[in-house]
Amino acid sequence: MRTIGALVFPEFELLDLYGPLEMFSMYPEEFEIRIVAQYSPDVPSSGGPRTAVDDQITEQDDYDILLVPGGRGTRNDVENRMLIEWLNRAAAKAEIVASVCTGSALLAKAGLLDGRAATTNKLAFDWVAGFGPNTDWKRSARWVEDGNYFTASGVSAGTDMSLAIIRRLMGDAAAKQAAIWAEYEANNDPDNDPFAIEAP
Amino acid sequence: MRTIGALVFPEFELLDLYGPLEMFSMYPEEFEIRIVAQYSPDVPSSGGPRTAVDDQITEQDDYDILLVPGGRGTRNDVENRMLIEWLNRAAAKAEIVASVCTGSALLAKAGLLDGRAATTNKLAFDWVAGFGPNTDWKRSARWVEDGNYFTASGVSAGTDMSLAIIRRLMGDAAAKQAAIWAEYEANNDPDNDPFAIEAP
Repeated sequence: MRTIGALVFPEFELLDLYGPLEMFSMYPEEFEIRIVAQYSPDVPSSGGPRTAVDDQITEQDDYDILLVPGGRGTRNDVENRMLIEWLNRAAAKAEIVASVCTGSALLAKAGLLDGRAATTNKLAFDWVAGFGPNTDWKRSARWVEDGNYFTASGVSAGTDMSLAIIRRLMGDAAAKQAAIWAEYEANNDPDNDPFAIEAP
Repeated sequence: MRTIGALVFPEFELLDLYGPLEMFSMYPEEFEIRIVAQYSPDVPSSGGPRTAVDDQITEQDDYDILLVPGGRGTRNDVENRMLIEWLNRAAAKAEIVASVCTGSALLAKAGLLDGRAATTNKLAFDWVAGFGPNTDWKRSARWVEDGNYFTASGVSAGTDMSLAIIRRLMGDAAAKQAAIWAEYEANNDPDNDPFAIEAP
């Protein structure tokens, strides 16, 4: 059994979080999902709906899988020193660190993407890349795997990335089965990026 | 501005709810999302994470769009008379009524799908169809539109259905733009069902 620490912060993007959590939730005997945040009892998404918090960052930083969504809130939280320091501690303990969309800006700000390849939302690409001058940012990638770091492109790409994590941990059949249960037409090729944008 | 009443109940399926809400949230000046439930302050999904509740069914039944997810919890809630009666009241006031996955079992139990065409999760098809003997159940459909009722197949099909609702209310360009913002490869053909199962 692995624990997933799924970070939320004000104005996180709903599907960044819940696409991956849907896929992990297909295997409740393999993954326990914990919602972790700086605030309690709940945190509002950019779309409005609020997610209830299980763990506070002041109390817990030990998860097997760390999942960091993006969303408008990352614009504030790149300057949130308490959160960035927590990301450093939690990433050091995690077997896998994963971000979706502009969640990679938080990882980059924490220095966690230095020397690694990574990607992010194509519509916020240059803003995010600015936080990781020592990162090999991929403009065309559905998601990027570099060692134990997984970074996804925008929103829905996180769902494909989560299936790649399931594939690594449980094998290809388990990843395919999760997609079928969710009636999800997965993109299983990290280099197939229909939303890639040319460099300006 | 339209209000969306997004129902949650214990053991609802995360992506049934949050795939559609992600797409509606792309247009915050067009849609206000309200989470509605029989319980407060929050309701656990089948995957674990809890969603905070904005409105109680005892207090509010007036929404422009009613969204009913599925999930394991529908097995209990088809027998939940208070909830079924609320669905009847809320559906009568709504401009659009939509379900995802086994959420259609709740609509069927309320009699709301009588005389209509509808679909549901392919892996629970016969169980759901049993609640709607006077419904024209489609075994092969990504989603079905019949008048102001939209019913989606399993889980991820709800996201495609939500784009169809945006298309009807706001036009094709708005639906396409929402999918692009979410880097989502939409299936825009309700008759293209990669997960259809032959009748036994």
